[in-house]
Amino acid sequence: MRGLIAEAAPRGSLVDRATEAVRTHIAVNGLKVGDPLPAEGRFAEELGVSRPVMREAFGALAALRMIDVGNGRRARVGAIDGSVMAASIGHAVSTAQVSLADVWDVRRTLEMRTAELAAQRRSDLQADAILRAANELAISRDEHTTTAADTAFHQTIALVSGNPLFFQIVRSFEQMMAVAIPKAWSARQTDEARAETLALHREVALAIADQDGSRARTAMDRHFDRSIDDIFAT
Amino acid sequence: MRGLIAEAAPRGSLVDRATEAVRTHIAVNGLKVGDPLPAEGRFAEELGVSRPVMREAFGALAALRMIDVGNGRRARVGAIDGSVMAASIGHAVSTAQVSLADVWDVRRTLEMRTAELAAQRRSDLQADAILRAANELAISRDEHTTTAADTAFHQTIALVSGNPLFFQIVRSFEQMMAVAIPKAWSARQTDEARAETLALHREVALAIADQDGSRARTAMDRHFDRSIDDIFAT
Repeated sequence: MRGLIAEAAPRGSLVDRATEAVRTHIAVNGLKVGDPLPAEGRFAEELGVSRPVMREAFGALAALRMIDVGNGRRARVGAIDGSVMAASIGHAVSTAQVSLADVWDVRRTLEMRTAELAAQRRSDLQADAILRAANELAISRDEHTTTAADTAFHQTIALVSGNPLFFQIVRSFEQMMAVAIPKAWSARQTDEARAETLALHREVALAIADQDGSRARTAMDRHFDRSIDDIFAT
Repeated sequence: MRGLIAEAAPRGSLVDRATEAVRTHIAVNGLKVGDPLPAEGRFAEELGVSRPVMREAFGALAALRMIDVGNGRRARVGAIDGSVMAASIGHAVSTAQVSLADVWDVRRTLEMRTAELAAQRRSDLQADAILRAANELAISRDEHTTTAADTAFHQTIALVSGNPLFFQIVRSFEQMMAVAIPKAWSARQTDEARAETLALHREVALAIADQDGSRARTAMDRHFDRSIDDIFAT
């Protein structure tokens, strides 16, 4: 928050530079999630920009979840939560820049690795939680509980991987999964097809419980093969 | 752009809903990158929100690169370009929510797959471009050209994978690579260490040229093993 920004620059670039100044303030001061930031007016004064420019900069940072601005509360450093990536990927899919098949291949790639890491790192409690998620999927009977259980299964494995970036990227697919999961399950018309998918989930959970990373990878790969067939066949 | 938004709601949620209305407008009308959007004032009128609320909504969408607003120009649908994910991941690293080792494992996971896909899908021209990037790395002598060549090598492979989501995620690591690459190369003090790293890059390029996906995967994995050692040993 040292140098002044000349008001002569175009407005768009003023906002960009004000945004950058806040990011630099966070980095230089080693701020962590939840730490309070100086007020908008304080930044505006120090940078020599107008209040509306500073308000736009705070708005951009809030959109990117880098800061958290409640109503009237002081702005705080924001937590990464997958929603920014979700918005970006959702926009790319909705405007046909990226296909659903592209997204599915990225998911498969990431989740083969989260399954492998989960097998290597899981505690006993975590192994139980993953098995329980697979079991909840088996007893769920309607679209809502099936989608919730299926999502919980994948997100728990990503969490147990111990790498928060994998977890956040996997979470960013949640909204798209909320559409795709019911589609995939409705393609599984027979009891046999349902049972096969449940067995594939269970095999991932068992391989993680057995701490067998390579079996967990392979099981996740086979699960995705099958699900991609179901989704794109319908 | 149908329903009106009641001005009685809190301002933050008004902006969120105005933002959502623009996203819905893009999706419902099947707009593509570069297509023009109705003016801010037009949205404000139809939604029954104030101009400042609508301006904030446009600002948030611009921060997420969903729309592209030049100075004075009409807003257009934006292209995904990796910068939003880069900002999100950069913030998470700078605030210690995610470690560099976490980022490196995500990169390795994604790039083993882009190498495999590139081997399966590359044209002859693309195979040559990847070999050329590996060769440019071999002849580069200073930090700037080495970083540029190393970045070009990884991004070309991601582009040739044919999956634009992989390409954008790999691009989102560019800023972090600009810091890590010089660090990794400066750890390679001897001619032998440099030669080994160049050979690992060349092996990835040759496996892609030979259309051998599994060899390309393995070579990329070994390259990351070695680079991670170099980066985290320093």
